[in-house]
Amino acid sequence: MYVHANDQRPAASLPGIDHRTLAGNADGLAALSLWRQVMAPGAATPPHRHDCEEVIIVDAGSGTLLIDDVAHPFGPDSTLVIPRNAFHQIVNTGSEPLVTTAAFACSPVHVYLPDGQAIALPWAS
Amino acid sequence: MYVHANDQRPAASLPGIDHRTLAGNADGLAALSLWRQVMAPGAATPPHRHDCEEVIIVDAGSGTLLIDDVAHPFGPDSTLVIPRNAFHQIVNTGSEPLVTTAAFACSPVHVYLPDGQAIALPWAS
Repeated sequence: MYVHANDQRPAASLPGIDHRTLAGNADGLAALSLWRQVMAPGAATPPHRHDCEEVIIVDAGSGTLLIDDVAHPFGPDSTLVIPRNAFHQIVNTGSEPLVTTAAFACSPVHVYLPDGQAIALPWAS
Repeated sequence: MYVHANDQRPAASLPGIDHRTLAGNADGLAALSLWRQVMAPGAATPPHRHDCEEVIIVDAGSGTLLIDDVAHPFGPDSTLVIPRNAFHQIVNTGSEPLVTTAAFACSPVHVYLPDGQAIALPWAS
């Protein structure tokens, strides 16, 4: 299966975040995962890190990227570059849904909190 | 630099293809590159391969993905999964511009033709 309709991909969610994995380990990928997420106004990820590089395309909305507790505001049609293992957090500081497409240089994707704990994600990655 | 406005990224082109590298080796990435391309109706890439996995998000437009000479049609809001080293070709078979965001599990990205020749790209990847 080389072609997928995005609205047919399995849907999952965390509080304030609607998620679809557009491509990942279940599609035969070993080094690349793509996630589409819609974050509600006021919602935020926890501070976390991945053991691979991540790039986030901001499709719509605006917010703030915190990296090592420094705030970097962003608008729509922008790109966020997150180094491997950098602790980061995304906050929807705007009044519209924040729509993002995230690419990870690993598959599956693991998420680690600052205390070292791995989060059990409710979606395949 | 963690945040970039996409319309400020360097622009380049090949016949029928307008390109911006949204993130890549020049941004400190070693294993991940993101490209945004707009392909004119009727335009096509040559058959080619990469020595890393690729995922293409179809933001707008429609076309055909050829993998090993088998055609897979796609519409807007779809995802194309291209295995490492698979020969593939993208053709805009629609009447509208084909807008894509491609993610590669390598940085920089190398492009090889069926005869083994590497293409010298007019953009940093």
